[in-house]
Amino acid sequence: MKIALIGFGNVGQGLAQILCDKAETLRAADGFVPQIVAVATRRQGTLYHPAGLNLELLLAAAAQGQLSAYPDMEGLHRNWAVPEIIRQSNADVVIEVTPTNLQTAHPALDYCYLALEHGKHLVLANKGPVVLAYHELMRRARQAGKQVRFEATVMAGTPALRTGAQNLAGCYIFAMRGILNGTTNYMLSQMENGASYADALAQAQNLGYAETDPRGDVEGWDTAAKAIILAQSLFNANLTIDQLEVEGITGLTTADMLDAHRAGERWKLIAQITPTGGSVRPVRVPLADPLAHVSGAINAITYTTDLLGEVTLVGPGAGQLTTGFGLLSDLLDIHRTASS
Amino acid sequence: MKIALIGFGNVGQGLAQILCDKAETLRAADGFVPQIVAVATRRQGTLYHPAGLNLELLLAAAAQGQLSAYPDMEGLHRNWAVPEIIRQSNADVVIEVTPTNLQTAHPALDYCYLALEHGKHLVLANKGPVVLAYHELMRRARQAGKQVRFEATVMAGTPALRTGAQNLAGCYIFAMRGILNGTTNYMLSQMENGASYADALAQAQNLGYAETDPRGDVEGWDTAAKAIILAQSLFNANLTIDQLEVEGITGLTTADMLDAHRAGERWKLIAQITPTGGSVRPVRVPLADPLAHVSGAINAITYTTDLLGEVTLVGPGAGQLTTGFGLLSDLLDIHRTASS
Repeated sequence: MKIALIGFGNVGQGLAQILCDKAETLRAADGFVPQIVAVATRRQGTLYHPAGLNLELLLAAAAQGQLSAYPDMEGLHRNWAVPEIIRQSNADVVIEVTPTNLQTAHPALDYCYLALEHGKHLVLANKGPVVLAYHELMRRARQAGKQVRFEATVMAGTPALRTGAQNLAGCYIFAMRGILNGTTNYMLSQMENGASYADALAQAQNLGYAETDPRGDVEGWDTAAKAIILAQSLFNANLTIDQLEVEGITGLTTADMLDAHRAGERWKLIAQITPTGGSVRPVRVPLADPLAHVSGAINAITYTTDLLGEVTLVGPGAGQLTTGFGLLSDLLDIHRTASS
Repeated sequence: MKIALIGFGNVGQGLAQILCDKAETLRAADGFVPQIVAVATRRQGTLYHPAGLNLELLLAAAAQGQLSAYPDMEGLHRNWAVPEIIRQSNADVVIEVTPTNLQTAHPALDYCYLALEHGKHLVLANKGPVVLAYHELMRRARQAGKQVRFEATVMAGTPALRTGAQNLAGCYIFAMRGILNGTTNYMLSQMENGASYADALAQAQNLGYAETDPRGDVEGWDTAAKAIILAQSLFNANLTIDQLEVEGITGLTTADMLDAHRAGERWKLIAQITPTGGSVRPVRVPLADPLAHVSGAINAITYTTDLLGEVTLVGPGAGQLTTGFGLLSDLLDIHRTASS
């Protein structure tokens, strides 16, 4: 499998690191021999080698902050534009891992369409295209006979999407409820321990959970994007972010945490999704609910089903290797499907 | 897909009920059209019809406690012996759902071997053959080019095995820890609320969780059997039940629950499995552990992995439709693999 990585930040480098570390295991266990043939960055140019880039040298160049440090070798192309890489490289799979833009999803969405048009499978950690154009992406993928996968967009590598789509196939899912954002869940845990909202936010930023501009997290938009992805992919819903009721945690105080504690409850930022709609808002969850015990940067999702009742999956919601694994599990699924 | 059900108690009837209720959905969503062509019981004889049994009439006969109440119709065979059904019926899949026998697994294991020998896929809810002969079953399945699946043996239909084998593929699993028996977990929850051991056991028996002879549950053997199945199928371990340290909950008292409560802990019957061994024993689990909050008849398993850290799956561990769904999900997997 030959892979073009559009975007080579934290998550893309995480995948490259995993493929580097696990090359032998993946070959032995699954007959899976992936090659990264191209990487594209916005500020540091691009690299393409049809025989595959050397992952150790690639990671070393990225660690220096400049792809230009990747050594010259025969057959290496530098600075092909992204459309050129998608159109003319020998990649079988395009991975979109540029930063999420929930307003327009561009230019990522154009790259996604271009990839399908040129017969590539598509794997995303970037939520934008999936949130804004899920149905169109799936339509074009069917037309092209290619796959679109995006496990890493929800709960990073914790298999929230495949649990719903594959493991619970045969059950009817009535609803999903989840804690889908690590930053806010970490902040709420800190506030329960007495931190002020401002201190909790500063701590989340120090740990690298929250962006410099944390509004996407604390106002609930990151959670809402994940809720839309769940609704579209598991309920085949036609739902846009502005149709959700979205409220973040910005109105919560340490005193609110104490009030909830006295009542045997905990504040959690909960996404609730049904086949007809959804909401994102802070909820006082009773301690008997498994979601009440999901603390810190951990995420969780509960599927309410006809045959199993409630099934809950708890795992990490962010992190470099964690999200990289989400990409890997999509690649493995494509590998298995394509080779069976 | 034509199915022979060996055993038609609670779980077999659960599957028949699901296939009856969901016939249209399964056809529409997955192109899956299963037919139960044969059922075999120990006390009420057997039925075989090459064109498929009528599920409503079959369930009605079972509800009366006698398969003889199933109406005569052209092509129906009554009272074929089980080996005859396996050898001579047109079934593609044999489902083994007779009661678990952890000492010898017979006659179920003979039926399993016979099914593979005659080119049938094999699906089990019966733990005996998997615990005692996993490696031999897999060897014969490879030889026959057929599949052996047994999701329903661990946590009923909660997808514990496929989460480990499929969703976490690409991760290295260092260890698994789980609450794998509903009866004992229910009893411990009742004892935390002040019930004596004897009262908790009586309540579990009244609710149908515990058998009349509850030793398999309370002495830890049911949990140990599930631990062996996890170890064999996810670690490819060569491990027998007598190599595990097994201790049940029979030594625990209401006073022990109180002691743990004062220390901010809870007693749970925990299976711990690594690639080299395992144990089943009551453990005082701190409240920060997700397993501490798994109450009543609910089960849970935590996988400790290299790339994701801890991932926990929580869901029902017993029940008629729940276990029936475990069988269905294996059938769907076989359907997908065979038709891809």
